[in-house]
Amino acid sequence: MTSTPSGPRPSRRSETSRRAILGAAFELVGEVGYAKLSIEAIAARAGVGKQTIYRWWPSKGAVLFDAFLALATDGQADTTLPDTGDIAADLKHVLRATVDELTDPRFDLPTRALNTEVAHDPALAADYVERLDRPIKELKKQRLRSAQRAGEIASDVDLDVAVELLFAPLFQRWMLRSGPLTPEFADAVVATVLAGLRPRQN
Amino acid sequence: MTSTPSGPRPSRRSETSRRAILGAAFELVGEVGYAKLSIEAIAARAGVGKQTIYRWWPSKGAVLFDAFLALATDGQADTTLPDTGDIAADLKHVLRATVDELTDPRFDLPTRALNTEVAHDPALAADYVERLDRPIKELKKQRLRSAQRAGEIASDVDLDVAVELLFAPLFQRWMLRSGPLTPEFADAVVATVLAGLRPRQN
Repeated sequence: MTSTPSGPRPSRRSETSRRAILGAAFELVGEVGYAKLSIEAIAARAGVGKQTIYRWWPSKGAVLFDAFLALATDGQADTTLPDTGDIAADLKHVLRATVDELTDPRFDLPTRALNTEVAHDPALAADYVERLDRPIKELKKQRLRSAQRAGEIASDVDLDVAVELLFAPLFQRWMLRSGPLTPEFADAVVATVLAGLRPRQN
Repeated sequence: MTSTPSGPRPSRRSETSRRAILGAAFELVGEVGYAKLSIEAIAARAGVGKQTIYRWWPSKGAVLFDAFLALATDGQADTTLPDTGDIAADLKHVLRATVDELTDPRFDLPTRALNTEVAHDPALAADYVERLDRPIKELKKQRLRSAQRAGEIASDVDLDVAVELLFAPLFQRWMLRSGPLTPEFADAVVATVLAGLRPRQN
């Protein structure tokens, strides 16, 4: 740390503002819902001017997707999933972390607000897919691709389908509260997706 | 048909009213949303008295879940899934039918209204699981159980998990519009869930 409190470098000051804005957007959507979320309120909560937000993002939806993306990637643009060489262990780790996130009260309301708005607004859904869903899916596919190269996953598996088999059951249980969302469920999903339903001839 | 227009048997008249009420509830929730759905409006649309509805159902949520259940089972309480002895073919048939239903404009808005309300209302979610999700899941599990008996599915597969692997990817793509919801996707889900991701030693 070379900067001082009285004179941070511009890039550090920008990064501090960016994080404050994303944090404010995430908190506010859980408190007031997407419809009532405004750039004004985000700016006030973050302690920045509205113009700072408009300089970086075209719309409140864009701010919000970046807020969720920052959360999903811990703010690192180049995040990758763990790769210990054991795809079952690594997927269990990631699916358990997803369960933790979905059942975290701080995360629950903002995420429900975003998802239900996406469900009712096709234009927002297109932004969601482009800015949030696709980048996160790509991280997951990278790990599966590495497992294919290592011979842990069959070479003809469609990785888009594989990602959805792994994560959609967690999403649906969380969204509809249709079953216990536990580490044990995460493990069972990973084991069943990897093995398939067919009997194995061993 | 033994009844005449002027003198239907009571059981037929009841069944006609029941279908009119369920149809009205289903249409109305797509038009006005769950919050504004009322027993009064359902009664008016169905051409019955409010008391007729209250005699059979305790709440508007209960009417609505029965409306969705009637749609899912074609109004037959004892519906079963097709069982030709070929689990892959039968699941593809059922998942393709689910795709057709989810992409049917008549079905789309009512189902989004119900699902987003369930997502935000834990009490309604509990009713949803009890009255709609569990009965439909049970039909699907019956078919998988038959496949286990026939040796088409491994005996140690958790059928609750299996049902969710098969249907959650369709639900998520539909809800978030996160990918094409096509017959080809339905087929790919079935094939991948059955085979699993691991390479087969054949």
